[in-house]
Amino acid sequence: MSGRRQPVLGVLGGGQLARMLALAAAPLGVKTLAVDSVADACAGQVAPLLVADWTDYAALEAFAARVDVVTFDFENVPAETAQRLAERVAVFPNPRALAVAQDRLAEKTLFRECGLPTPDFMTVDTREQLDQALATVGAPAILKTRRLGYDGKGQFRLHDLADADPAWAALGAQAAKHGLILEAFVPFERELSVLAVRGRDGDFRTWPLTRNWHVDGVLSMSLAPAPDIELLQPRATELARTLAERLDYVGVFALELFVRNGELLGNEMAPRVHNSGHWTIEGAHTSQFENHVRAVLGLPLGDTGARSPSAMFNWIGELPDATAVLQGVDAHWHDYGKQARPGRKVGHATVCAPDAGLLATRLGGMAVALGREAQVAPVLSVLA
Amino acid sequence: MSGRRQPVLGVLGGGQLARMLALAAAPLGVKTLAVDSVADACAGQVAPLLVADWTDYAALEAFAARVDVVTFDFENVPAETAQRLAERVAVFPNPRALAVAQDRLAEKTLFRECGLPTPDFMTVDTREQLDQALATVGAPAILKTRRLGYDGKGQFRLHDLADADPAWAALGAQAAKHGLILEAFVPFERELSVLAVRGRDGDFRTWPLTRNWHVDGVLSMSLAPAPDIELLQPRATELARTLAERLDYVGVFALELFVRNGELLGNEMAPRVHNSGHWTIEGAHTSQFENHVRAVLGLPLGDTGARSPSAMFNWIGELPDATAVLQGVDAHWHDYGKQARPGRKVGHATVCAPDAGLLATRLGGMAVALGREAQVAPVLSVLA
Repeated sequence: MSGRRQPVLGVLGGGQLARMLALAAAPLGVKTLAVDSVADACAGQVAPLLVADWTDYAALEAFAARVDVVTFDFENVPAETAQRLAERVAVFPNPRALAVAQDRLAEKTLFRECGLPTPDFMTVDTREQLDQALATVGAPAILKTRRLGYDGKGQFRLHDLADADPAWAALGAQAAKHGLILEAFVPFERELSVLAVRGRDGDFRTWPLTRNWHVDGVLSMSLAPAPDIELLQPRATELARTLAERLDYVGVFALELFVRNGELLGNEMAPRVHNSGHWTIEGAHTSQFENHVRAVLGLPLGDTGARSPSAMFNWIGELPDATAVLQGVDAHWHDYGKQARPGRKVGHATVCAPDAGLLATRLGGMAVALGREAQVAPVLSVLA
Repeated sequence: MSGRRQPVLGVLGGGQLARMLALAAAPLGVKTLAVDSVADACAGQVAPLLVADWTDYAALEAFAARVDVVTFDFENVPAETAQRLAERVAVFPNPRALAVAQDRLAEKTLFRECGLPTPDFMTVDTREQLDQALATVGAPAILKTRRLGYDGKGQFRLHDLADADPAWAALGAQAAKHGLILEAFVPFERELSVLAVRGRDGDFRTWPLTRNWHVDGVLSMSLAPAPDIELLQPRATELARTLAERLDYVGVFALELFVRNGELLGNEMAPRVHNSGHWTIEGAHTSQFENHVRAVLGLPLGDTGARSPSAMFNWIGELPDATAVLQGVDAHWHDYGKQARPGRKVGHATVCAPDAGLLATRLGGMAVALGREAQVAPVLSVLA
């Protein structure tokens, strides 16, 4: 090992996902180099950060020369950027997989080809097509940009036909640039996600299904393993495996699912480590971050089993006082080192317990101490 | 939280302990700045690193101005360096505690004052005093430098009186500079360590006792919680508490103990996070690194309970092939990002399991795959 050269992981994007990837990479002896257009991107606190725009190809070429493999903390990297990097260095997931996940139409089409039903949908390019789509898909429905949407951004919910005008006013301007898609609003019973990882050698694993709760389109709470998923887990795993193999996917991804009448419906795929997998840092034998690093570097994948039931609070906009979490048993604080800003993901906390009953007790006590009873209530109702 | 300023932890020394402190500090929203005389110190891979000698007071002053609190990854920082820093910024543990732990005589004297017996010892300043000390303490015995020794360095074992000459030849030159001490060699039954943490507010906690095995004076394996310590745990905890309160200690420390005839004997105290506490990263609810950061920054201490039985392999000199650990269940690889060098601590691995029997099975399998049967054998004999 004398004179050894440590592998360097390049990450496009320097947000909290890059930060947590870098923290997971270090114990593996892997160095991280992140690239972001913002000089104070929070990954820069734990790894070197190169400041460059996605279209600054000279800078990206220098970046590629310094790393052994490139991956993403952000899926909306322009396809051309990913493609140009892929000509110089290994890029995982591959640019084609990234392109599919960037486009709601391609994504939903792939889901259906893989045997995963989706809510009804139609593409919308003009105001007239919106009326036609509404007539076909029915209301309520959600008008979404085909590209560049996340966390409920680029979405407009239509309760009836009269909402077509305001929906078009909100998003019509983006029809030409990004394309629009109208999706039926599904009165789902539950939201789940399956976190999956596929290695360079095709080894494939999933973590236990996670149950998620969103508020205003942004993840609020997660619970893992999701209760009562005995019948759904094998199906979710097989769907994720089929998707991954179709895309020759390498790395971690999240498949967001709805449950309606006990059946899985595909919502969307995130081609990266995902907010609903943050519980794996303490709640699983190997975290999503560590397994993503392992996968893209060609190392053996780690065990994805749960160590214990876990619940995650997402901190949006600003951090609450940390005391109740720091004082909790098997409770873990994650401050991303970001400035507070409305709607911004600034941190999370994970609480683990040996069993669901004790998890409910710990969560309930913490919710009171944090003043977050409303945030935790849906989780407690499931654990009760 | 808008415009928030994150606290900055200053660490004297940039080795693997500083590296693991920085990795634990990040999720708490704490930035780290390490200082080391070596430009490629491995903590510099995960945190900014200032390159300066311990006596470069101008550089250390600039360092002090950039941090909120100073701590150590290395206990042999000159007392004057610690004292000068303490005049400018909070330093934990305080320089007096550091000074006691740096001096085997002061340390053993304190142990006895706190009711913790130690092996017989005598100070040795001259060749004649070595003979007198040998006559009093008896052989076998160990001649040690009072200061600057660690990991078996600065030690010479004397089997009988005839070894006095070679012992003096080896260490006599250091008598004037560092002082020497002759300690009776204790035929101990077990080596244990208690990791403890004390907060700025006096809150005090210990992790479960750890059993340790050394080879050539360097830690080889640890097992936690140490088996059969029901009667020893409360006594070790009370001794550690007494020591910590006497020194007004803030932060994590390790108290190394021998067990002889079922009784505890004090060996030495390490005024910092300690190799025998590395298992706490995955094996305890809060790691020694996280609790040290919390303690020195005045945050609430985290729960020190064990999550599961854990065993740690130390990697000395060079890393073995990582595959068997990466493929293991609840097995965790820690590469410090250092160049290989004989005797150097370059990494460790921790294996956890729900019970001792399963831990033995996992360890045994891993030992074979790693070709490390001899290293693991003493641990397996205890788990059997």
